[in-house]
Amino acid sequence: MIRVAIIGATGYTGAELVRILSRHPKVELVALTSRSYAGRPYYEVYPHLYKYIKLECEQLNINELVASADIIFTALPHGHSMDIAAEVVKQGKKLVDLGADFRLNSTEQYQEWYNVEHTQAELLSQAVYGLPELYRNNIAESTLVANPGCYPTTAILGLAPLIKNNLIDTNTIIIDSKSGASGAGRSVSLKTHFAEVNENFKAYGVATHRHTPEIEQELSNLAGNDVTISFTPHLVPMTRGMLSTIYGQLQEKIDSEQLNQLYQEHYADEYFVRVLPPGMLPQTKALASSNFCDIAVTSDPRTGRVIVLSAIDNLVKGASGQAVQNMNVIFGLDENTGLDVVGIYP
Amino acid sequence: MIRVAIIGATGYTGAELVRILSRHPKVELVALTSRSYAGRPYYEVYPHLYKYIKLECEQLNINELVASADIIFTALPHGHSMDIAAEVVKQGKKLVDLGADFRLNSTEQYQEWYNVEHTQAELLSQAVYGLPELYRNNIAESTLVANPGCYPTTAILGLAPLIKNNLIDTNTIIIDSKSGASGAGRSVSLKTHFAEVNENFKAYGVATHRHTPEIEQELSNLAGNDVTISFTPHLVPMTRGMLSTIYGQLQEKIDSEQLNQLYQEHYADEYFVRVLPPGMLPQTKALASSNFCDIAVTSDPRTGRVIVLSAIDNLVKGASGQAVQNMNVIFGLDENTGLDVVGIYP
Amino acid sequence: MIRVAIIGATGYTGAELVRILSRHPKVELVALTSRSYAGRPYYEVYPHLYKYIKLECEQLNINELVASADIIFTALPHGHSMDIAAEVVKQGKKLVDLGADFRLNSTEQYQEWYNVEHTQAELLSQAVYGLPELYRNNIAESTLVANPGCYPTTAILGLAPLIKNNLIDTNTIIIDSKSGASGAGRSVSLKTHFAEVNENFKAYGVATHRHTPEIEQELSNLAGNDVTISFTPHLVPMTRGMLSTIYGQLQEKIDSEQLNQLYQEHYADEYFVRVLPPGMLPQTKALASSNFCDIAVTSDPRTGRVIVLSAIDNLVKGASGQAVQNMNVIFGLDENTGLDVVGIYP
Amino acid sequence: MIRVAIIGATGYTGAELVRILSRHPKVELVALTSRSYAGRPYYEVYPHLYKYIKLECEQLNINELVASADIIFTALPHGHSMDIAAEVVKQGKKLVDLGADFRLNSTEQYQEWYNVEHTQAELLSQAVYGLPELYRNNIAESTLVANPGCYPTTAILGLAPLIKNNLIDTNTIIIDSKSGASGAGRSVSLKTHFAEVNENFKAYGVATHRHTPEIEQELSNLAGNDVTISFTPHLVPMTRGMLSTIYGQLQEKIDSEQLNQLYQEHYADEYFVRVLPPGMLPQTKALASSNFCDIAVTSDPRTGRVIVLSAIDNLVKGASGQAVQNMNVIFGLDENTGLDVVGIYP
Repeated sequence: MIRVAIIGATGYTGAELVRILSRHPKVELVALTSRSYAGRPYYEVYPHLYKYIKLECEQLNINELVASADIIFTALPHGHSMDIAAEVVKQGKKLVDLGADFRLNSTEQYQEWYNVEHTQAELLSQAVYGLPELYRNNIAESTLVANPGCYPTTAILGLAPLIKNNLIDTNTIIIDSKSGASGAGRSVSLKTHFAEVNENFKAYGVATHRHTPEIEQELSNLAGNDVTISFTPHLVPMTRGMLSTIYGQLQEKIDSEQLNQLYQEHYADEYFVRVLPPGMLPQTKALASSNFCDIAVTSDPRTGRVIVLSAIDNLVKGASGQAVQNMNVIFGLDENTGLDVVGIYP
Repeated sequence: MIRVAIIGATGYTGAELVRILSRHPKVELVALTSRSYAGRPYYEVYPHLYKYIKLECEQLNINELVASADIIFTALPHGHSMDIAAEVVKQGKKLVDLGADFRLNSTEQYQEWYNVEHTQAELLSQAVYGLPELYRNNIAESTLVANPGCYPTTAILGLAPLIKNNLIDTNTIIIDSKSGASGAGRSVSLKTHFAEVNENFKAYGVATHRHTPEIEQELSNLAGNDVTISFTPHLVPMTRGMLSTIYGQLQEKIDSEQLNQLYQEHYADEYFVRVLPPGMLPQTKALASSNFCDIAVTSDPRTGRVIVLSAIDNLVKGASGQAVQNMNVIFGLDENTGLDVVGIYP
Repeated sequence: MIRVAIIGATGYTGAELVRILSRHPKVELVALTSRSYAGRPYYEVYPHLYKYIKLECEQLNINELVASADIIFTALPHGHSMDIAAEVVKQGKKLVDLGADFRLNSTEQYQEWYNVEHTQAELLSQAVYGLPELYRNNIAESTLVANPGCYPTTAILGLAPLIKNNLIDTNTIIIDSKSGASGAGRSVSLKTHFAEVNENFKAYGVATHRHTPEIEQELSNLAGNDVTISFTPHLVPMTRGMLSTIYGQLQEKIDSEQLNQLYQEHYADEYFVRVLPPGMLPQTKALASSNFCDIAVTSDPRTGRVIVLSAIDNLVKGASGQAVQNMNVIFGLDENTGLDVVGIYP
Repeated sequence: MIRVAIIGATGYTGAELVRILSRHPKVELVALTSRSYAGRPYYEVYPHLYKYIKLECEQLNINELVASADIIFTALPHGHSMDIAAEVVKQGKKLVDLGADFRLNSTEQYQEWYNVEHTQAELLSQAVYGLPELYRNNIAESTLVANPGCYPTTAILGLAPLIKNNLIDTNTIIIDSKSGASGAGRSVSLKTHFAEVNENFKAYGVATHRHTPEIEQELSNLAGNDVTISFTPHLVPMTRGMLSTIYGQLQEKIDSEQLNQLYQEHYADEYFVRVLPPGMLPQTKALASSNFCDIAVTSDPRTGRVIVLSAIDNLVKGASGQAVQNMNVIFGLDENTGLDVVGIYP
């Protein structure tokens, strides 16, 4: 059994890790840390796990915790995983960081967008961007996996076939994204107060969201040149789910059927990417609680643009499910071990 | 492998059967019937199952279908399962009926509340009320299982310990129930039109709902005398989940702690009934998509009343999960085979 | 023009007062106080009022504020209106308190249920319970109006015709209430965090909610004897709206039609109570944003019980609309001045 | 008093007309037609209007109905208003058509996008596109007003200042729009079934939605050249509200502050367009039930693009409120007569 410790286990991505791993046939949960709930049974914090999880929340003791586990998941605000990573590397264990500390290759970029100094710059070169569909082999050999952001997951998976095939003018990419409120986490805030979110729709972080450089970094890698994008996130009055609508100018004439065929082939071996057949469009409900990314692609001959729709459950493929997928890759398991579930519909 | 056919597979309870059984390790789905969608791939009707279910919807041919399966689930409006049951019995197969045709022992009651004649009265005596927590042994030996209604499941499980221990005045029972909209099924109707249900709360079927005689029948069985209840269902602006708030006059002084102890003991061996520890109350989100029934019980010394809260996912323990639990009992499997999942939270 | 000051203007009931009063033809808003937002334009806190409200939020200076206004509304947590009331009385102005400080006649009851000492006990005798349908004449002459709680408003209006006509056994009253999340106010809390409330339903405060003694006080007044009730509030995943389902044993045989007739007559002169015609049931959406209380009454011959459904918008008839109605009574205006709006549907 | 008849009064836009006009000080409602509910009191169909509307639904008799009214609103599916328009013109009355029959100047375009022949082509030249902010003077003199679609209202108001000032490259315009479910009307459909919409987000009509040519026609008029756009509508799990996120390449360097200033000036005299101050972004809740269009504009120096956010209540400024605004213009009333209400928040 793989011994797993989760640091920051009482946020939503932490809880989702616990939910998934509690059913994972190769995993034993050994520690769940929480600053707010230390000393209390985990099921009091998350009642859906009553009778499933006997562990108590505990204070973080980095040294001991890393020693007790084979792999550590950090589900913390940015800035808090750097020192933990150092300890993990020192003890020769594995880390999947669900935060942002190791996603950007450049410490300058990190400091510019996150307003925090990166204290473990030398570890960045060891970190692998944890999108298995792109970096599976590197992940398998890595110690330190930077689990992607939720928005970037939809954007990169949605655009990769177009960019790799040089079909899209990378100067024209616009990513209009919509997310359920669980993406903002469990910390209380007026922005996620029920009566403020319910029956409401709005944009936020217009032209300033921190996932922008992460998307640009990975699209640039795919393109082989610098890619600058427009990215606008929106808040949807629902709990789970994320959908990105992506626009770009096509470099050549290609119709929807050909694009669908191209995507089908590109992702033919990917268990967790479902390129939908013509006539079907992604919807968040069709993958709620699952690790799928559902994609549809449309060519619009009137404008010469392509429109890609790319949807995930923000807490699963956008966070904890992808983290477990990365763990499976690291330990040589089937990638869908513990993740082979369909969405809850309706 | 148990060969399973589902008649009426494209309603919500049918789809939930497919979802659960698609992951059941001992089951092979052999047929999914649908009048509306015959000839179309099932995943077109339920996109969450894309890549999981290859079957097409088919027209019902009773004879052939029963022959092809070991067990048949009927997920049909009332009145439509009677003739199917006759064929199942004839061919010596098993039936779990998710509708109402075999729940009431009395054809008079059935005809009074459902306004339909019962054409298979002689089969009623063979039918077992499919609440495993009450009738496990009978179910194991039965051919014909009448899967309980969703409201009755909450009410009966919530009241059984009180009635069996003669703690409640059975003339004073009031059951105030609240259900998500998926309980009304997938047939379109103004009553389940999004803009009518969203941000709305209302009662319906006041003093006339068809689950009333079903609850009374089972409570009377438990009590050993005729029990008449008040039952009021309400529609909650959410998709899944059901919670009943049950009131009754206590026959003797007993405090909340003692009642909790009594319930804990009563359900100690039941996997799917979670009597919550003092301080926790049921909430539908804590069991969404799971087969649990969560119960809390409170004694109110000011009024001498007991208040029981009993919650389920109406599509799982209230329908398809319970149906699979019944199937597991019939075939001698562990009751939680294919059902051992926790809720999706948040 | 009536000069109005609102203390605690940035909670939801404060904002609802501002919304209603901004359109009231006889009112001039002179001051809006807020501890959290002092110095900021009110429209920054509540963007729906952009271009309608030019006032800034200000710190509370009791003396000056009372001097500047003819009537003061306090929309504060319990315990905070007592000293303000003293100043209002001293300066000979009027107060409508939307909190709980003057609702209970008995300081012992207040201290028992609210765990706070009442520092202005002598003012209690001057306070009038601000339910115009019961105490219109007293309100007209009063200085100090205790605006009712939201749950009590539904319960008292729903039960008054039965109790006044001695039709219900007052020992058997059960009030099962359901409220939208705005009733919990705008203060952030895990209990009102979007992802926790959405797609969730639960009870809270079982047998312990503070509106219990308020309901009992008013029902006892109506009955002329002590009335003890069971009251269970529930949280509905919606923003606005409240519905109470009320049960009791009838003292005599009387059918639904007769009860409806009785209610129609009882409330014939009340603008804001709509007794629905037979065949219609209250639903919260039908009165969202309006000051109506919609009521339906059913006799159940099977059990000898009556079931009353009583619905309001918790922020309007359950708080700020009723407060304005009280102001209208105090100043001799038509009761529906500024309140003559229909619900927003859908 | 202006005598008003509404044809198709029991759809959501019809009901919203009734709600608004029931409070309009210069209007008398004389007839409400409905095929489905003829003969039934209107309040049975829309319970929020109980005690406000005494009219019964009636069958449409075009001749008589037009004779009885000064102005007729048609709230019908496309294709059904053409013959009514002919009768209105014949009798010299006024028509505001909330459907699509007179929005497109070109019958070819109409037939291409709506798959219906236009039988009153000669009336098209008399029809005015009913966006008062653009065509106020024409509307005042017109007999036949084509009330804009909801999506076009957000798009045109959002883009007009940029296009008129030649600031945007009209070849680069992308309009990504999101709407609540009430926009799909009250006709029942699986697409608007509660359990399908709730907790779900999806696009529809990708590159094929019928509002595309309407937007292009009006943007082309503003630009003085042919404008082709990308337009993608999405369905948000909420009842009311619509927000469009609009992208385009700026023709010159201009920062957000300058753009805001430009918009403020452009709309300085428009009561119903609120250009939000810097730091505020539109949200649908801030204008629910009001006739406002809230707009914010951002310049992104990284990409040289402008991002415009434009929000309305789809049933009010997107349909019935705008129709009443048009009526006010026609009859020389203040434009905000009967429409001077703020949003319902929260």
